[in-house]
This record gives sequence, structure tokens and C-alpha cells, in this order.
Amino acid sequence: MTVTIDDVRRAAAVLDGVTVRTPVLRSDVLDERVGASVLVKCECLQRGGAFKLRGAFTKISSIPEAERARGVVAVSSGNHAIAVALSAKLLGTTATILVPEDAPAAKIDVVRSLGAEIVTFDRFTEDRDTVIGALVAERGLPFVPPYDDEAIIAGQGTAALELFEDVGTLDALVVPVSGGGLIAGSGIVAAALSPGTRMIGVEPATMDDTRRSLEAGERVAVPMTATIADGLTVTTPGAVTFPINQRQLERVVTVTDEQLVQAMRVAFEELHLVTEPSGVAALAALLTGAADVRGERVGVIVSGGNVGLERFRSLVYGD
Amino acid sequence: MTVTIDDVRRAAAVLDGVTVRTPVLRSDVLDERVGASVLVKCECLQRGGAFKLRGAFTKISSIPEAERARGVVAVSSGNHAIAVALSAKLLGTTATILVPEDAPAAKIDVVRSLGAEIVTFDRFTEDRDTVIGALVAERGLPFVPPYDDEAIIAGQGTAALELFEDVGTLDALVVPVSGGGLIAGSGIVAAALSPGTRMIGVEPATMDDTRRSLEAGERVAVPMTATIADGLTVTTPGAVTFPINQRQLERVVTVTDEQLVQAMRVAFEELHLVTEPSGVAALAALLTGAADVRGERVGVIVSGGNVGLERFRSLVYGD
Repeated sequence: MTVTIDDVRRAAAVLDGVTVRTPVLRSDVLDERVGASVLVKCECLQRGGAFKLRGAFTKISSIPEAERARGVVAVSSGNHAIAVALSAKLLGTTATILVPEDAPAAKIDVVRSLGAEIVTFDRFTEDRDTVIGALVAERGLPFVPPYDDEAIIAGQGTAALELFEDVGTLDALVVPVSGGGLIAGSGIVAAALSPGTRMIGVEPATMDDTRRSLEAGERVAVPMTATIADGLTVTTPGAVTFPINQRQLERVVTVTDEQLVQAMRVAFEELHLVTEPSGVAALAALLTGAADVRGERVGVIVSGGNVGLERFRSLVYGD
Repeated sequence: MTVTIDDVRRAAAVLDGVTVRTPVLRSDVLDERVGASVLVKCECLQRGGAFKLRGAFTKISSIPEAERARGVVAVSSGNHAIAVALSAKLLGTTATILVPEDAPAAKIDVVRSLGAEIVTFDRFTEDRDTVIGALVAERGLPFVPPYDDEAIIAGQGTAALELFEDVGTLDALVVPVSGGGLIAGSGIVAAALSPGTRMIGVEPATMDDTRRSLEAGERVAVPMTATIADGLTVTTPGAVTFPINQRQLERVVTVTDEQLVQAMRVAFEELHLVTEPSGVAALAALLTGAADVRGERVGVIVSGGNVGLERFRSLVYGD
């Protein structure tokens, strides 16, 4: 039970014509600030506003048509919800999405506009797994996990596949970590196409479960805490993703909320990209030096841009 | 004395490895709002933040090395200034740029950081051509015109060349118009690669010199008026660009400042692009219906994103 570069290539074939081949951008100012040659894979420009469509569409496509025709169920703070709703729509089925009550309104509006049914829960008092288990049992529909699944990992890996195809080998690849699906898929691709690449993960300072788990040598949990990185609020690494990441990651570093906002400013000014806090975690780690890549040729995934004008104003201008 | 598709292809070869092959994005929400299939060529993601590097680098490259080695001179409200300063730096020479006193500070800061010398003038009381003539005479250096030049037109045409290569034929292509270099180059490419494409230009409502000139059948001037579209403040069409545009354009439509801001909002929310007012003129014309393309497959060039956080705040949030 593992994921190979061939699985990622098969996912890329499934996604052909569905996902956008997002651009790789660079900026002289950014290079100077980081002290490295930085290649930015812009998944904030992906359809659905984040890399998540890659995994969700790959997974839902893999469910036999007769089974998925009655609908699918998912749980997400936002971007996976959008991706599942969009995938369901594109594949001619429906989605029911379990969403934390405090998820960003802009994301929920998009999910609703895509025709999905929304069920809310309180992520501070209710256990996510228990709530989703009850919903899946009640509806009797296939569940589309956000990260802990081979098809999801293979799908997410297609972002790095495009990156390496476009730019060749890299000294390091820096990737945001939540449940670990994106970086697991990225590492599988790096190992195959650019074996010398150091894989560096980035988590919010308050929710560094993968960093702690790597140190402990086993999956440990951190408490649910408030962070503006709403897409990176997983409390423990995935059972499928963690062993892969344990093999592949050099290390995981952390960034604070203020550093995320500063990275959003840099993305706006220097790259003309609209990004969300979770989306710039890896960029923030380059800017602070937490991910030390001086003098190197480094790839970074900017993973999402679903922030909305209202939230952007509050985060960036403090209004 | 004309510009051909072969000139544009030669410019593309000169620009290879210098400019970014910018992505073409689409959005389901945008398609629905416009009632068309809209393909967005993102020149706001171009190096230097606008399409202008294409023309400036092509032009400066075409000046014999011995001549350009002592430096070049240009006049610009911002994006052409950045493009000339960046081109000069990349080609190992220097640039002196004449800039209106009221040009956006964010743009001038970038020009200065690229090592160019800045000379200011008052665009409401001083005649641009007179001031630049005096500067060119004084310095004895080659002048890099912003639009009214065959090499510049060929260079700007490479944006449309990439667009048609990527998406095939289009029913219409909607392009912002200032001096008319970008749309002239775009029309040359369309005529060669997608002959049925209707070329639609877009100007600010208060500075519609190309629209009026097309109606009059000759180049007419409009007064210099205030508009937030600082990159589209040319008062009369170019002597070189106008005859080309007269042959190629179906028509020119106009948009107001408020419509430009609204288009910036849509670019932010739906495409995750940071854009400047001048850059979204064509997108604004699609959103208002001024450019009627219902049911069609239409290309639109978003031409620049050099807005800066401070000006974005003032324009979009009214702070």
C-alpha cells in the first residue's frame, strides 16, 4: 500500500483538461530577499483556488460510477470542500460537505454556489472524525478524505510533477503541511525526478503536529488552536501520509500568523498573486529564513488563494 | 514600413528566456457573468508586472550594442519605465526615464530600484514631446518610444502570439488601448493565426482618443484628464500604431473609473490576480457588456498589475 510516481502520472492523465497547468513564477526582488533562486508554483491560480482539486477529482474519479452517482461526502475547512463540490459537479454527481462553523464565509459561499449541501460542526467542541463517521453512516455515501488516501496523495503530487517538468531539478522544495497529502505526493515526485531535492515542510507555529511527530518518531497530536491558517488546522498527521513523509522529509519548520500575513503582502506586491494565509506558509518560511536555502535553487508551492476581499482587508490592513 | 507576423515571431525569439510565458486562466464565475467563454491572458504576472517588457526589451535589443552601451532614454507614467529600466539592466546598460510628477509612487520606486535615473515633468502643464525632445538632445542617447515604433509593436504582439498558440482561434480579442501598441501587435497576430477574430479596443471614458480617431477617420486629440487608469493617458493615437489599428480594429469601447475598480475586484476574487486600473480595462468592458461577446469564445488581455498595497487599499476599499 504505497504511492508511486506512476500513480502520480496516472492522476495527471485523469486531471488533463480538468485542472489548470499553473504557472511557475519568479521575481528578482523575491530572489534578493530570500538569497536564493526561488521558483513559485502558483496553485492559488488553480481552478477552485487551491491545489485541492487535483486530489479530490482524482479520488472521486476512482470511485465506480454506480457508487458515486448517488453523491459523495467530505469534511473540510474550505478548499477541499470547494474541490469536492466542483469535482462532483464536473462528474455529474452531488456532494454533502461537513464544514466547521468558523470556516471563512467566502469559501462556504463558493461551495454552496457549486450546488453542494453544507452541514456544519464546531471544531473546538466536537470531534471531527466522530461527526463525519455519523454523517457517512447516515447517508451511506462514499467518503472523500482530505489527505489520508493513496488516490488523494497521487493527485496532489501532480502539482510537483508539473513543477519539475517545467524547471528541472531543484536543491530544495518547500511545501505547506496540514494533513501531509500535498508534501507526500510532492516528495514521491521529487524522489523520482530530482532525487537530490531536500523536502522541507512548513506548519503554523501553533499546530506543528507533523514537526513534533517526526521528532517523536510516531504520530502525535497537538491541541486545536486558533490560527489564521484555516487550511492547516489538522491536529495529527495522517496514518497514510505520515510514514511517507517520515521517509521523505528533511524537516518541518514553522511560521507565525504575522509571518503569514507578511508573506501575503510580498506575494501581492512582488508576484501580483492573491493568496490566503495557509497558501503562503512555505513562502513565509523562505522569507523568514526558517527554511534555510541560501544560494540554492528552490521550489515553493503557493497552495491557495481563497481569501476574499473582506478577509484580505482584515488580515493585511488590520481593518 | 509595416509590422508582420514574422516580426512578432522574431521578437518572440529575442524574448525567449527573458519574458515569462504568462498563463491563460479561466473562471466558471467569470464565464457566467460575461455570458461567454473567457480566456484571460495574465500579463499582470509578466516580469516587471506588465506586458511592457516585451516591447522595451525587443526595441533596446535592436539598437546596435555600441550605440545603446552609453544608455537609453524613455518617457513613461510607470510600466514602460519599469520595462525600460529592467531591459537596460538585463542588457548591461543604463536608462534615464522621464516620469510625470503624479505617477504612482509604487512604480517609481521600482524604476529607481532597477538603477535608472529619474527626471520628472508636469503632464498637465508641460508638453511631453517637447520635454522628451529636450532631454534626448541634451543626453545624445537613443530614445525608446513607449508604443509608436515597429520593434515595440512586434514585441507587444508576442503576448497574443502566446495566447493563440495556447488556446487556438477566438471569436474576439479584447485589449486595453493607450498609444495602441499592444492592440496593434495583437491584431497582426490575430490576422495571421485566427483571421475571424474581432479586435475590440478599450479606453477610459475620459480619454477615448483612439475611439474618436477611428470615428473621424484620422488621428484626433483629447484633452489630458484625470483617470485612475494611469497607464492609458495618451491624448492622441500613435502615427505608426493608428493606421494599423484603423485596418484591424472592429471598434473601441470605453469604461469608467468605477467600472475599472469593479473589474479589479472581480480579478481579485475570481482569478486571484492583483491588477492595476489600466490593466483591467478590457476585463471591465466584458463585465459591463460594453464589449458585447455573448455566447462567444473570447480572449482578454489583463495587461498589468503594478498597483501596490497602498493604492489598492485606496481604490478598492476607498480608505
